[in-house]
Amino acid sequence: MGDVQGYIGRELGRFTAEILDFLRIPSVSAKSEHNPDTRRAAEWLRDRMEGAGLEAEVLETAGHPVVLGEWRGAGLDAPTVLVYGHYDVQPAEPLDLWDSPPFEPEFRDGRLYARGSTDDKGQLYLHIKAAEAHLKGGGALPVNLIILAEGEEEVGSPNLVPFVEAHRERLACDAVVISDTGMFAPGLPALLFSLRGLAYFEIRVVGPSSDLHSGEYGGPVVNPAMALGRILATLHDDQGRIAIDGFYSDVLEWDQEARDAIRDLPFSEDDFAESLGAAPEGGEPGFSILERLWIRPTCEINGLLSGYTGEGAKTVLPAEAMAKVSFRLVCDQTPQRVAELFRGHVAAVTPPGVTVTVEELQGGMPWRAQLDGRLKEAATSSLLKAFGSAPVLAGGGGSIPIVGEFERILEAPVLLMGFSLPGANLHAPNEWFPQENIELGIRTLAYLYEELGLA
Amino acid sequence: MGDVQGYIGRELGRFTAEILDFLRIPSVSAKSEHNPDTRRAAEWLRDRMEGAGLEAEVLETAGHPVVLGEWRGAGLDAPTVLVYGHYDVQPAEPLDLWDSPPFEPEFRDGRLYARGSTDDKGQLYLHIKAAEAHLKGGGALPVNLIILAEGEEEVGSPNLVPFVEAHRERLACDAVVISDTGMFAPGLPALLFSLRGLAYFEIRVVGPSSDLHSGEYGGPVVNPAMALGRILATLHDDQGRIAIDGFYSDVLEWDQEARDAIRDLPFSEDDFAESLGAAPEGGEPGFSILERLWIRPTCEINGLLSGYTGEGAKTVLPAEAMAKVSFRLVCDQTPQRVAELFRGHVAAVTPPGVTVTVEELQGGMPWRAQLDGRLKEAATSSLLKAFGSAPVLAGGGGSIPIVGEFERILEAPVLLMGFSLPGANLHAPNEWFPQENIELGIRTLAYLYEELGLA
Repeated sequence: MGDVQGYIGRELGRFTAEILDFLRIPSVSAKSEHNPDTRRAAEWLRDRMEGAGLEAEVLETAGHPVVLGEWRGAGLDAPTVLVYGHYDVQPAEPLDLWDSPPFEPEFRDGRLYARGSTDDKGQLYLHIKAAEAHLKGGGALPVNLIILAEGEEEVGSPNLVPFVEAHRERLACDAVVISDTGMFAPGLPALLFSLRGLAYFEIRVVGPSSDLHSGEYGGPVVNPAMALGRILATLHDDQGRIAIDGFYSDVLEWDQEARDAIRDLPFSEDDFAESLGAAPEGGEPGFSILERLWIRPTCEINGLLSGYTGEGAKTVLPAEAMAKVSFRLVCDQTPQRVAELFRGHVAAVTPPGVTVTVEELQGGMPWRAQLDGRLKEAATSSLLKAFGSAPVLAGGGGSIPIVGEFERILEAPVLLMGFSLPGANLHAPNEWFPQENIELGIRTLAYLYEELGLA
Repeated sequence: MGDVQGYIGRELGRFTAEILDFLRIPSVSAKSEHNPDTRRAAEWLRDRMEGAGLEAEVLETAGHPVVLGEWRGAGLDAPTVLVYGHYDVQPAEPLDLWDSPPFEPEFRDGRLYARGSTDDKGQLYLHIKAAEAHLKGGGALPVNLIILAEGEEEVGSPNLVPFVEAHRERLACDAVVISDTGMFAPGLPALLFSLRGLAYFEIRVVGPSSDLHSGEYGGPVVNPAMALGRILATLHDDQGRIAIDGFYSDVLEWDQEARDAIRDLPFSEDDFAESLGAAPEGGEPGFSILERLWIRPTCEINGLLSGYTGEGAKTVLPAEAMAKVSFRLVCDQTPQRVAELFRGHVAAVTPPGVTVTVEELQGGMPWRAQLDGRLKEAATSSLLKAFGSAPVLAGGGGSIPIVGEFERILEAPVLLMGFSLPGANLHAPNEWFPQENIELGIRTLAYLYEELGLA
């Protein structure tokens, strides 16, 4: 296979510089003012895929485009691997909490700080460089490779399923590989056995037709912010369980063996609490922290806004109040069913004197891995070579809505193998990626393509 | 008394233009970026007081200055009247809800739209023009007059009581007149028999040390926004009563005669509901709307902020959440006692896993009028002359913290007689003042000085 690993060592400086260039583009898919940046990221990515030796093109969707890179030179007998990643990022606000600007990547203390360094531009780019190492360092890839990079993962991938369905034959593959997750701990890689789904809503409580003086009108007017608080307070019981009728009906209860395997992982609840800076008193009683993160659903408030929020006091009785409320789902819940239950619950607890609307902003299915022997073996072997350690099986608390859809549409198993670390501040200020995993990640993926090609 | 009323008629156009100039100065006391504007308003006011024939000066305080205008020419036997008003205004946000810019006064449909048109720059200025009418049109005022204009009423008058105490002898007077309130209805003036007090807090709930990914961390982490919602939901019971232990202990229960007088006022609850655009289902059962506005206390949320509040979805688990919470108080409640009860309540209901701080932003005592016969008679007579209608007695839902303090320090009764109308959007977008009451207000106050001088 030529000098693939040697090529990686020699070109690592340039690879790293390219990642920094990629991270400098503020491809925030949720914000329309960044649409030109998001497109620029797609075009930049296409050019770099071509530079790596792939055929690449930008394909339009109803929203942000898909970038597709392909190399079909391994022949009909060789397996085809589809790599999926996303080139869009979360909004970076609040900007004042970043120690360095989110779109000016900076190395500090062995970490690469930038929005998207972990989620997912940095990790997506590792695949492109692993492919380049084979194509330029070894002369060929051991597998046929398709790299599919979307630009709407952070807004719920509204156009990706139609895209995959429309290109089902072109995207046909034997395995899907995604690096949008992390290792279990430093030095200890992980393969994911599950992901949680998502059902994300905006709830808006409207009272009087305009903001009022809280003295002149306070009393007979139902305060929309207070009504919102009362609605939100009904979502959990005093124990931390979600108090929506029927919410747990579809929740899969894991067997003791699976729960024991989670309990056997090297995880310190004390260290977790310390890293949070707060006591981990949330969630359901009777489940460990990792169980509450991986195999139990949640209901969170992601945002609150009403009335006057500036400096000092303003005696306003606000005309409306807004909350962003989202649920993480586990098998066998569906976002459709949760939306139905949530709407019904909100309608039932809304007090008189206000009107409430519930808008669905995002939804994604939960997922449970169906790893076959060969895929798991190839992943294990490649991680062992690069990191000197076999992976553990871990759950994922977050959501990658497309995972289950890939399995359904392409009828190929999905491997989730990522190189981030716990505490990497995904979706938060000071997102980072471990600097050494730029090299180790590219090496692992180059090994993985090789292992899969041997099969 | 010379041609005082004739002078008003002749100079009304200039008087009006001066009011517009005053309203153009964005003297927002709560916002430090407006400090230069607030000072400019004080200096502008001093110059206009001098132009009206008063001696005037800007007196420094620890915050925004006081403007003091004086005319002592009526002699030792004549009564001294102290007029109090404020030249600062509420913040104008949200700006996009104004039909014309808040600091570009505009007449539409018989109304003068601008921030401060009613509260209180417009009304304060009526007194200065009534004084000018006597001094320039009649040659003298029938009373000794002191006009005290402060610049911190909208931030709780933190420096006014020390100021009044320090200038107790200079401010000695027989009556205090304040025009910072409204008429009961178009054509029906009102004198106020009560004001509610205020206790205003900012409550801040802090959880993890930074914003987190709601998928990676959701479950074991206590969500500060959810904790805030649960805390806020405990402030009322299901009936709309405030559910803080001991909160009603100091609340004065009014006798049946006083409640009957309120019930006899010409007030349509249906019209009130229609003007709100919402059903008036708030507050305590067993009290009419006017009772809930005037003689019962409230607890309101004035602002809410947490996490992501922009367009679309961001799956953040916020590190903190903030609410501005204020209480309107009635006799014999005190802001000190309410602060104590509120802090105790919040501490008792705060869930584990978050820490909560409560900051006191404003406090003011409730007030009940002690109108003596002469003052009430003079006010009634002057309103009858200008409006053709005697005033009713009405309550005030808002707070003018200094009223009770004037009575205590200066040992003089306070007359609250204002010219705004219900629905004037105080503290809200599209604040307005009835155009015809510019003239009728100045005429009324000129009559009032005359009536008080006759005594």
